[in-house]
Amino acid sequence: MGATVAAACSGTVLWASDGRSEATCRRATEAGLTDAGDIESVVTAADVVISVCPPHGAVEMAERVAGTGFAGCYVDANAVSPSTARKIASRFDSFVDGGLIGPPARRPGTTRLYLSGADAGRVAARFEGSVLEPRVLDGGGPGTASALKMAYASWTKGTSALLAAVAALAAAEGVADDLLTEWDLSLPGVADRLAGTAGEVAPKAWRWTGEMDEIAATFAEAGLPDGFHRAAGEVYRRLRAFKNSPETTVEEMLEALLR
Amino acid sequence: MGATVAAACSGTVLWASDGRSEATCRRATEAGLTDAGDIESVVTAADVVISVCPPHGAVEMAERVAGTGFAGCYVDANAVSPSTARKIASRFDSFVDGGLIGPPARRPGTTRLYLSGADAGRVAARFEGSVLEPRVLDGGGPGTASALKMAYASWTKGTSALLAAVAALAAAEGVADDLLTEWDLSLPGVADRLAGTAGEVAPKAWRWTGEMDEIAATFAEAGLPDGFHRAAGEVYRRLRAFKNSPETTVEEMLEALLR
Repeated sequence: MGATVAAACSGTVLWASDGRSEATCRRATEAGLTDAGDIESVVTAADVVISVCPPHGAVEMAERVAGTGFAGCYVDANAVSPSTARKIASRFDSFVDGGLIGPPARRPGTTRLYLSGADAGRVAARFEGSVLEPRVLDGGGPGTASALKMAYASWTKGTSALLAAVAALAAAEGVADDLLTEWDLSLPGVADRLAGTAGEVAPKAWRWTGEMDEIAATFAEAGLPDGFHRAAGEVYRRLRAFKNSPETTVEEMLEALLR
Repeated sequence: MGATVAAACSGTVLWASDGRSEATCRRATEAGLTDAGDIESVVTAADVVISVCPPHGAVEMAERVAGTGFAGCYVDANAVSPSTARKIASRFDSFVDGGLIGPPARRPGTTRLYLSGADAGRVAARFEGSVLEPRVLDGGGPGTASALKMAYASWTKGTSALLAAVAALAAAEGVADDLLTEWDLSLPGVADRLAGTAGEVAPKAWRWTGEMDEIAATFAEAGLPDGFHRAAGEVYRRLRAFKNSPETTVEEMLEALLR
């Protein structure tokens, strides 16, 4: 996702190759980014910094940037809870909250960058006319764009985890085929979604565990039950060994869940 | 559901009016049932007893019937965990496990009665040709039909509870309209499902809390996270005041969830 956000941003876009993998370097080159070396050099030269990383790294990244004395606009576009976003905001004079919804932005109409906070319009302007559609949440402050991202992902990633767990339960109880037959009759589409889950979801599970923790915290802070996403986090934790294994089968996924 | 199961059963079908509401009596009369007075009289005269009740009452009902010395075939067709089904089975010489999937059986093709256990074929024969389709799970024992019901309901009722909680979260965070707009773009159908949830789900919530407890126990016994359905149980608990209130609006439902 990060490389496509960078590619969609107008003006000179810097990145830091220091310590990154060959695959990441290739994606940055393909996105037309300028390598500034390390993060400190990026921050020194930039007037806006956009953080796009797995949610469990969002606070650490913000602290690293704040530690350089960065005086520009910091955008956290990660899948974090509103309170985590506000915690990050407190480290910067200028902060914009962001939430990315959709797949990596490779063609128009698929992916939106929601933005909230006083400087949201200025950040949005950098993406106008690109494949990534910026949307400013009127009247929202730090936490608003994150809240929308949390609510959206709580449904998509919560239901994917639940579906995987339901299939594992049916397998454990010896009724997997009967469940598929009943789904075909009364819930067409669910069996197909399960078939797609292993290949599409399991390889990303390693970076969704932190997101489920952020979502669970968001529910708890709103006085709502956090169990859905505590459980979803556990499902994704059991699947983390499938990192970048797009060939994962349903059978392999269920075996990992029933370890 | 109970009245439609009784109406679909061939032969003389007895029921007990003792202590039941006027509405229940009307449904029994419409279903063509014969009133035997109290449960003890039903049990004395019957060769098969079928229990269809809210899951939190299933064990008590089975114990009441077993306490009469009933020597016929006891069918538990309730939404209970496999281990609850096996606990009930241990009280009877002849036991058939049942799981009902679908709405109350008023027309053909909508509703199935899954059956497992040695005498399942004999029970299935009583429903052949009726609007309720009996399906014997080959090779299954006490617990198999219940496992299928748990797996099926864990998806349908788990996702309904999650959807209600997601909507409540968005409302609490002031992003409800933005979430609906994003759903309309990228997940058509979800907003419509939410609109239907209040009217269809909230009135039944009072009897789904026990079912969520049974499902959570089923997940835990299979070594899977039980948090999805512990949370779903809490959602339905907060909605129990809407018992038999079909006019419940989304706003009323969300207010109850955010009490």
